[in-house]
Amino acid sequence: MAERTSYRDFACSTAQALEIVGEWWTLLIVRDAFFGVRRFDDFQRRLGMSRSVLTIRLNRLVDEGVLETREYESRPPRVEYVLTRKGADLFPVLVSLQQWGDRWASPKPPVVLRHRACGRQTRPHLVCSACGERVSAADVSAEPGPGGSDPNMLPPD
Amino acid sequence: MAERTSYRDFACSTAQALEIVGEWWTLLIVRDAFFGVRRFDDFQRRLGMSRSVLTIRLNRLVDEGVLETREYESRPPRVEYVLTRKGADLFPVLVSLQQWGDRWASPKPPVVLRHRACGRQTRPHLVCSACGERVSAADVSAEPGPGGSDPNMLPPD
Repeated sequence: MAERTSYRDFACSTAQALEIVGEWWTLLIVRDAFFGVRRFDDFQRRLGMSRSVLTIRLNRLVDEGVLETREYESRPPRVEYVLTRKGADLFPVLVSLQQWGDRWASPKPPVVLRHRACGRQTRPHLVCSACGERVSAADVSAEPGPGGSDPNMLPPD
Repeated sequence: MAERTSYRDFACSTAQALEIVGEWWTLLIVRDAFFGVRRFDDFQRRLGMSRSVLTIRLNRLVDEGVLETREYESRPPRVEYVLTRKGADLFPVLVSLQQWGDRWASPKPPVVLRHRACGRQTRPHLVCSACGERVSAADVSAEPGPGGSDPNMLPPD
């Protein structure tokens, strides 16, 4: 990974998020965890990565607090991997990536979402937390927040 | 990047999206483009990556249709990089990553968003396209869509 430079020192939440979930396979593991996949062999079969790489990725996600292990057999001890609250909070990231892929990169949506509460198919979209209206890039401006100290991580003047 | 396996053949829109934007630096370039950064030297200064790596990344984003070039000087010819519609559609991905980072990875938000239409600070959230109610992972189920053919890319039974 010679090109990799750590974002850890960037005062930018997007960079911090990518520091944790910006690895190639990470979000596909998280996607499968949202689908209810829990066991090593199931992740391995579905994602087709080597066992050694999957082990590294799962351990990284456990270290970062995105997944946690639960023992489901004690003799021999076997664990499964489940999303933490921090991991479940990645739902909007996954949904947004899926919808972008549906629109721009897949001929037909391989997976559709259903909203359990209303029973209908759903393509969730973002709304403003203050007024409830739909927001897009053109409607939103960025400004320095309480942690904004590095000018390169803020919008230019 | 020896660990890289292409997602191109996965029937999964998230995988297809990550095939395009899953590179380390890609989403930070796109973030800066949302901030209005357009010129090579400005991207380079802000992101601190080498000129050769930045060139590869920008060309990749142009090839993928996320950015397009516009000539802003003809003698000598100089181009700037602006988001296409496909690129601007990444807004929900960036906002979702930023908010996750704000919550889980940054002590204080470095950047806050303001909704121009209502004038207030906003933390956009996802709502159902059918009923308008807020959605979270627990409210949504996934099922095969019209392009769903690879069982490993669908929720397990």
